[in-house]
Amino acid sequence: MRLNQIIEDIKESNKTVYEKARERTANLIMPPRAMGRLNDISEKLCAIYSTLKPQTDKRAVFVMAGDHGIAAKGVSAFPQEVTGQMMGAFMGGMATINALSNAANVKVFVTDAGTLHSMPDAVISENAEFFQRKVASSTKDFSTEPAMTLEQAKECILVGYDVTCEQIKKHGLNLVATGDMGIGNTTPSSAIGSVITGETVEVMTGMGSGLTNERVINKISMIKQGIEINKPDSGNGLDVLAKVGGFEIGAIAGTVIAAAHNRIPVVIDGIISTAGALIAAVVAPKTLDYMIAGHVSEEPGHRLMLNHLGLVPVLDLGMRLGEGTGAVAAMQIIDLAAAVIRDVATFEEAAVSGKED
Amino acid sequence: MRLNQIIEDIKESNKTVYEKARERTANLIMPPRAMGRLNDISEKLCAIYSTLKPQTDKRAVFVMAGDHGIAAKGVSAFPQEVTGQMMGAFMGGMATINALSNAANVKVFVTDAGTLHSMPDAVISENAEFFQRKVASSTKDFSTEPAMTLEQAKECILVGYDVTCEQIKKHGLNLVATGDMGIGNTTPSSAIGSVITGETVEVMTGMGSGLTNERVINKISMIKQGIEINKPDSGNGLDVLAKVGGFEIGAIAGTVIAAAHNRIPVVIDGIISTAGALIAAVVAPKTLDYMIAGHVSEEPGHRLMLNHLGLVPVLDLGMRLGEGTGAVAAMQIIDLAAAVIRDVATFEEAAVSGKED
Repeated sequence: MRLNQIIEDIKESNKTVYEKARERTANLIMPPRAMGRLNDISEKLCAIYSTLKPQTDKRAVFVMAGDHGIAAKGVSAFPQEVTGQMMGAFMGGMATINALSNAANVKVFVTDAGTLHSMPDAVISENAEFFQRKVASSTKDFSTEPAMTLEQAKECILVGYDVTCEQIKKHGLNLVATGDMGIGNTTPSSAIGSVITGETVEVMTGMGSGLTNERVINKISMIKQGIEINKPDSGNGLDVLAKVGGFEIGAIAGTVIAAAHNRIPVVIDGIISTAGALIAAVVAPKTLDYMIAGHVSEEPGHRLMLNHLGLVPVLDLGMRLGEGTGAVAAMQIIDLAAAVIRDVATFEEAAVSGKED
Repeated sequence: MRLNQIIEDIKESNKTVYEKARERTANLIMPPRAMGRLNDISEKLCAIYSTLKPQTDKRAVFVMAGDHGIAAKGVSAFPQEVTGQMMGAFMGGMATINALSNAANVKVFVTDAGTLHSMPDAVISENAEFFQRKVASSTKDFSTEPAMTLEQAKECILVGYDVTCEQIKKHGLNLVATGDMGIGNTTPSSAIGSVITGETVEVMTGMGSGLTNERVINKISMIKQGIEINKPDSGNGLDVLAKVGGFEIGAIAGTVIAAAHNRIPVVIDGIISTAGALIAAVVAPKTLDYMIAGHVSEEPGHRLMLNHLGLVPVLDLGMRLGEGTGAVAAMQIIDLAAAVIRDVATFEEAAVSGKED
């Protein structure tokens, strides 16, 4: 009931301000739309914030962690304890997301939405803040049974929603990014991607963190078996999440819903985050107005998932890590898009001559 | 003689440190090279600075301005007075390069290397610093005669070299970007691109700041005529610059040479900057070790020029403005590449388990 109410309350972004932003772009002292994609992003920001002076200076990445029953089927190149070890690395400031977030002035919030690891209830370090919000200690193996119950699916979305809303309010955040940690989680992500986009499991599945070809074939076979046994309903986001998803993927959908509910943009990271975005888009289609695709990863399914959402990625740098790294990197460019519409003068304001023809 | 000495003094980047950086990348807590192009840039930075702890925090963009005799032949969509008006806009903080540089913490230095406009000898505003270093007030129309003399070609390179070296020393800069302003300057840039890469003028020439197709055909014809009349020697960078170049393009080559001479990276902007980089690469091939291609622009010749230099652009955002905007945007990502090699822990340092196979 609570989730339904939140979803109902989400508003579309401001189309009137969007049109005004398009007009301003056309008059900026540059050839028409010479900033390319930066102009597009400028205008999307204006529509989201309902202003021609967007600010993107208060930002955070929400790294959602979860473990996966299907990891027992050999779908990952790394052992399962790495999920917990990496949460420790995030708190210790040793991971890639810390290095990028520090350089890009982004706060790091880590949430245990359902891992096998045991961390204290709340930890704050100089590098990150941790939230213990386990829905369960791991999903079930979705190649043989549903990953979680329908109640747990709602619960993990609300975990992400609540953590994100709390920090948006506490810090006055105006830009958030999604991130993930969970050994084995490209497997449910490819499953969700295949079910929701209608593309085959074969084109949607890749090497993840570094599988051999032989093990990719096993991964594909496990995903196909999971979809066949569970029969997720592609039009029902909660059903898809429950049957072939993950707790961190649901929590990511929650971050997306929280951003839309608070009318701020959310930058989507790689294939796991985009699986969360797909769930959010099915359960709450208006969230699409608030999504910016940070990058396109090396995972082959990722571009297909972005195409399905109608999102054009900001960066294409061959990244394939997760943790929110591609989304945080894109924030560096989104800053510039905000600056273009906010700070560049028009031909009239600058008294510069326009085009001759 | 002075230019020859400078060129002789340029050293290759440090290949030993490059190998050490490759080793460190392989051990960072992420799947092998999971940061993609960021890993490549990290390693290039390490080789340039001779350290595994690169810093890219003190940076500036050098916007070189010049006017072009060939503008009289209708090769630009904008009137020629815009070169001077835009120099005024840079000093007034109203242009796109100001907005981006301000957001990215980059100093803006504007040099008049040869425009028709009259600016005071030295101006400092809160937005930018200006240097009056005219080689002449405009190039000649290269469709009928050489754009400049061989002496002037050397002189404009030294203008760019001197301005850049002065500011590197004064501010301890560790990262510089190239930029340009000059109505008509995609025309000499396409000419240089065609002569040095060997590609046809037709594939190398585009709409610039917004020409109609009919006027692009005229532009192509003017470039072909200029190359036929002047017969630039593709193996002699000074000859190419003198015959079909521009003062700001020579000054950009000077910035590239200054960066290499000072062993710091130089981020190359769009097609005009890349024409300058091509000149620099011909007269001083070791400068290639110090170049990072900031972005690939919408001008069709730009990608061909980057391919010729063996450079992969950081960004591909459909930008086509110049001023240094694509290079400054890329600095935001280069910062992150520096952070990855500098700040991310290795598996051993972080006590995280490695891959199983």
